[in-house]
Amino acid sequence: MLNKEFLLPAEALKLIMNNIKKADLALEVLKIENCYGRIIADDVLSPEDLPNFPRSTVDGYAIISSDTYGASETSPTYIDVKYEIPMGVAPDFKLNKLEGAKISTGAMLPTGADAVIMLENTQIISSDMIEITKSVASGENVIQKGEDLKMNEILIRKGSKLRAQDIGALAAVGITEIKVYKKPPVSIISTGDEIIPHHLPVSLGKIRDINSFTLAGLVKENGGIALKRGIVIDDYKMIRDIIEKSLSDSKMILISGGTSAGTKDMVAKIIDDIGGPGVLFHGLSIRPGKPMIGGIVDNVPIFGLPGHPVAVVICFDLIVRPILNLLTGLTNDKFPYRTIKAKIAKNIPSAAGREDHIRVFIEEKDSEFIAHPLLGKSGLVSLLVKGEGTVTIPPNKTGVNAGDEVEVKIF
Amino acid sequence: MLNKEFLLPAEALKLIMNNIKKADLALEVLKIENCYGRIIADDVLSPEDLPNFPRSTVDGYAIISSDTYGASETSPTYIDVKYEIPMGVAPDFKLNKLEGAKISTGAMLPTGADAVIMLENTQIISSDMIEITKSVASGENVIQKGEDLKMNEILIRKGSKLRAQDIGALAAVGITEIKVYKKPPVSIISTGDEIIPHHLPVSLGKIRDINSFTLAGLVKENGGIALKRGIVIDDYKMIRDIIEKSLSDSKMILISGGTSAGTKDMVAKIIDDIGGPGVLFHGLSIRPGKPMIGGIVDNVPIFGLPGHPVAVVICFDLIVRPILNLLTGLTNDKFPYRTIKAKIAKNIPSAAGREDHIRVFIEEKDSEFIAHPLLGKSGLVSLLVKGEGTVTIPPNKTGVNAGDEVEVKIF
Repeated sequence: MLNKEFLLPAEALKLIMNNIKKADLALEVLKIENCYGRIIADDVLSPEDLPNFPRSTVDGYAIISSDTYGASETSPTYIDVKYEIPMGVAPDFKLNKLEGAKISTGAMLPTGADAVIMLENTQIISSDMIEITKSVASGENVIQKGEDLKMNEILIRKGSKLRAQDIGALAAVGITEIKVYKKPPVSIISTGDEIIPHHLPVSLGKIRDINSFTLAGLVKENGGIALKRGIVIDDYKMIRDIIEKSLSDSKMILISGGTSAGTKDMVAKIIDDIGGPGVLFHGLSIRPGKPMIGGIVDNVPIFGLPGHPVAVVICFDLIVRPILNLLTGLTNDKFPYRTIKAKIAKNIPSAAGREDHIRVFIEEKDSEFIAHPLLGKSGLVSLLVKGEGTVTIPPNKTGVNAGDEVEVKIF
Repeated sequence: MLNKEFLLPAEALKLIMNNIKKADLALEVLKIENCYGRIIADDVLSPEDLPNFPRSTVDGYAIISSDTYGASETSPTYIDVKYEIPMGVAPDFKLNKLEGAKISTGAMLPTGADAVIMLENTQIISSDMIEITKSVASGENVIQKGEDLKMNEILIRKGSKLRAQDIGALAAVGITEIKVYKKPPVSIISTGDEIIPHHLPVSLGKIRDINSFTLAGLVKENGGIALKRGIVIDDYKMIRDIIEKSLSDSKMILISGGTSAGTKDMVAKIIDDIGGPGVLFHGLSIRPGKPMIGGIVDNVPIFGLPGHPVAVVICFDLIVRPILNLLTGLTNDKFPYRTIKAKIAKNIPSAAGREDHIRVFIEEKDSEFIAHPLLGKSGLVSLLVKGEGTVTIPPNKTGVNAGDEVEVKIF
């Protein structure tokens, strides 16, 4: 057991990352219409050229561009419009010199044609003749065969989260099924002699289970399957049993509560007793979230989260989420957050060496954002709902001053 | 039929908004664990005080604060520690003057006690006596009954999208079920003689149905239920039939395709023929997305979206999404987008009076973001997947210059 206390969150995260052995993630093959938001497990190559024929990008006339060279107001070119190309049909004729074919956006060019002149750039002389007064370049207003995607070109990279438009692109090249990573099951355990299920009335001294609901939602939002294991009292054997049971079917275990000092130590001892490497950090230099525990047993990351509802959200975001990304296969996540720049409304002091995460709500005033810190005793549920984002004060700063520009991470 | 061509997107949106009659949205009552991401249909009030007892926020000793007044290094106060309060239990004793009780974070204060002194601020003199060398204020380290939430205080406002932490807060006050808005069904129709289902091989001149996959994902992400109605050819009766059928069970209808000028006019005519007020705009001053149609029949908004895959995403975002928010009941959506500031990599000209939406991918370089415009012929599927966001050039500007700071809306 490493008993490093008071790491910074980034150091703690790195420690967990470095101690997880890379293992192949489980895969499943699904129809593309069931893959919105899923993580793709292979580079997907286009199985064909797209489009597979030269396609007009405008409504106009398919022509032979060299026919228009030198065309001008004073010396126009006249084109015989001998054909009209229906949508969705391969033209069965060949254009000859000074011939044209009426064509719609998206329709296929006939053999011989190498450009399309837009309707608005022509004069209709008669039912089968148009006048052109400017030259058209070869390829103008045409998407060539394979110009959009070439066969075997990479369409979507492994580890990407599939957006609506990515699924559209898969459909475009006729892909009906893809390999995605299976969603990792994550066990959620609530501990504490004072915790009761949310549907029961509270007697004096008791408090309802809040954190398992918050954590289940965060796990779900981040691509995991939440397995709620229920509430266990602060008892070595009961907590150990539920963790061991969870190890058999989970890729990650989250334990919340155990707010009293004695229980925190007990959870850490249990993690160490079950197997190696055990606890990797115990306590963070952060506010809120100081009592967090992180460890690994049998290559399954186990986190002991603080009991405070707000601290749970912060610790999940900083440590659990990046590890969960690893387990979901998400590697391509350039912009995981919505952030805004705001002016902070109050001075907030912070201890040097500690990373502070201040919950704020945002006011929009004269097209500027004002971040109002929600200060209050730790553990308040009302801060959970009122908070719209957090402002981080890094360990090398001793606070922010009213009016300073800050970056707010929006939940 | 109003035949206003070339409105700006914001004007077109307003026109639709102003012509939708406010109707009561359908509701359903669900267990809170099934409400992540759902829109709450009532202000939720706290049914009780939270906490319902005075609670310690630290590990320490519950005391009577007045016992410590005047305490100092030279004149300490000595407290008899007669009790230890277990977690989750209402203490059955009353503190008398100069008595204290050991207490953990989250435990209930005994009668008589009005403050908690932190463990670290005491000296242990013997197994039942501590020394205190500074005064403690009344209420210090205590959350009072009802301090977090008062009975009947508003916990979550109507029209909010429920985040993980909001569900946690509902559990905290014992709420097991809530009223949410039903997800609105949205019909998605693909039109075009050239469109074939995505699982079929493409013959020359044909193209697969892309947009119904993109649209289904966008509808789902934005809280609707996507009803895919299939592909219909460009035929008045067939398109009219499918729209009329969709009107019976949808709250919104999206028609994509009909790229050729003739078909666009046909879709507009059908919307007008079915009922009032019919088409409200036909064509937008936007690129891409110019051929968009918007109207209302029987209070159901109907949109004719362009056939181009990229234009579909832009038009959905600017016009369809805000209307869909109206139908899902989402009114409290302060930060719908992730946005970043970036430097644009190239000059991009734009016509005055037109709103341009440039797809970009983002490079991070020397801790700065560079937005690279994805220029290319309209209608390319590859731009769908390569695009990470869009930069808007407003109608009163004629472009941006390389190096300008721009705001990128991330998809």
